[in-house]
Amino acid sequence: MRQGRLFVFSGPSGVGKGTICRELVKDPSLRLSVSMTTRTPREGEQEGISYFFVTREQFQKTVEENGLLEHAEIYGNCYGTPRKAVMDSLRAGFDVILEIEMQGALQVKRSFPEAILVFVLPPSLEVLRQRLSGRGTETEEQMRNRLSSSLEEIRLIKDYDYFVINDDLAAAVADAMGIIKAERLKVAGSSEEIISRYEEENKCFFTHQ
Amino acid sequence: MRQGRLFVFSGPSGVGKGTICRELVKDPSLRLSVSMTTRTPREGEQEGISYFFVTREQFQKTVEENGLLEHAEIYGNCYGTPRKAVMDSLRAGFDVILEIEMQGALQVKRSFPEAILVFVLPPSLEVLRQRLSGRGTETEEQMRNRLSSSLEEIRLIKDYDYFVINDDLAAAVADAMGIIKAERLKVAGSSEEIISRYEEENKCFFTHQ
Repeated sequence: MRQGRLFVFSGPSGVGKGTICRELVKDPSLRLSVSMTTRTPREGEQEGISYFFVTREQFQKTVEENGLLEHAEIYGNCYGTPRKAVMDSLRAGFDVILEIEMQGALQVKRSFPEAILVFVLPPSLEVLRQRLSGRGTETEEQMRNRLSSSLEEIRLIKDYDYFVINDDLAAAVADAMGIIKAERLKVAGSSEEIISRYEEENKCFFTHQ
Repeated sequence: MRQGRLFVFSGPSGVGKGTICRELVKDPSLRLSVSMTTRTPREGEQEGISYFFVTREQFQKTVEENGLLEHAEIYGNCYGTPRKAVMDSLRAGFDVILEIEMQGALQVKRSFPEAILVFVLPPSLEVLRQRLSGRGTETEEQMRNRLSSSLEEIRLIKDYDYFVINDDLAAAVADAMGIIKAERLKVAGSSEEIISRYEEENKCFFTHQ
């Protein structure tokens, strides 16, 4: 069985990458990786579904055991991707979706060059600003800091494979699915398998005539 | 304005690549290149829409004037892609669809390495055989020759970028559109343009605060 592909979605805070990823994984061929974090759960977030919520000590222990595929500290909180769950899903042939910050995405690309990196862009910085203020969980100053770092983050797009602009959610999800579909339809790495399927059939055909 | 992309669809005779391409170009961002041929028009085929039907002398003259992007002789007939129409559409920012045989596709890839090659596969050789006999325009022997060369042709998939399996037409068209969409969402070659859009906006934002 062919191993699954690893799709990494990232982008500036507030761009809506989480919403896109949750829509994507409604497709049964895709699995969402659940991250580990030391941050406090937000209203409505569920353990093991939104995140695995852990203490700093638990997080540090997992890092030391090489149990994370990538990890990063963002605004004072640690985030990481549990390695085993991702590897198990890939081995079972599922394509895996990671929704992680830029630092983490580039770490993944270094250790997994075959990972496909998708950058989610806002239609404009102004829209991003409005979305962040609408969330209401951050102070004015935090928001300003985020926005000025958003542009810094967007400059990292150079190392990504694809971009999706999240203006209209349905269109952004369709674009993301187009990317996933196209990656599955690449000949590279599959040509021997494709050719041998028809060769086998041809052998049977001439035998049974 | 960004130049358009060149998508080349090919595959064994009878696989349905023409039908897929006709569906694709219902999208106004895509233009179908009309080939030149010396073969006799089939029932219902129209000059300038299905093909430009020309004599061998006219065809040869166009070749000598370097007026074809690629050309090939297939089952005794000449086929070629008029260069000017393709280049004009690409320059105007349209993505262009070429539906051509394998020999021609590989010629295009050599002179246009940025061309994206899509191989249309049958669900099986048996289905291809049934479709060819259903067309009713060929003798049993012609059909046998075609089928045995189909496998030879499928072996050329190694040089292609993507494949699409034409089992269900709607699914095949959706796959092909996914490929086109994904190619448009590639970061490579677009990152400077993307970054500068947000930089411009940020400059204005800080000026007007």
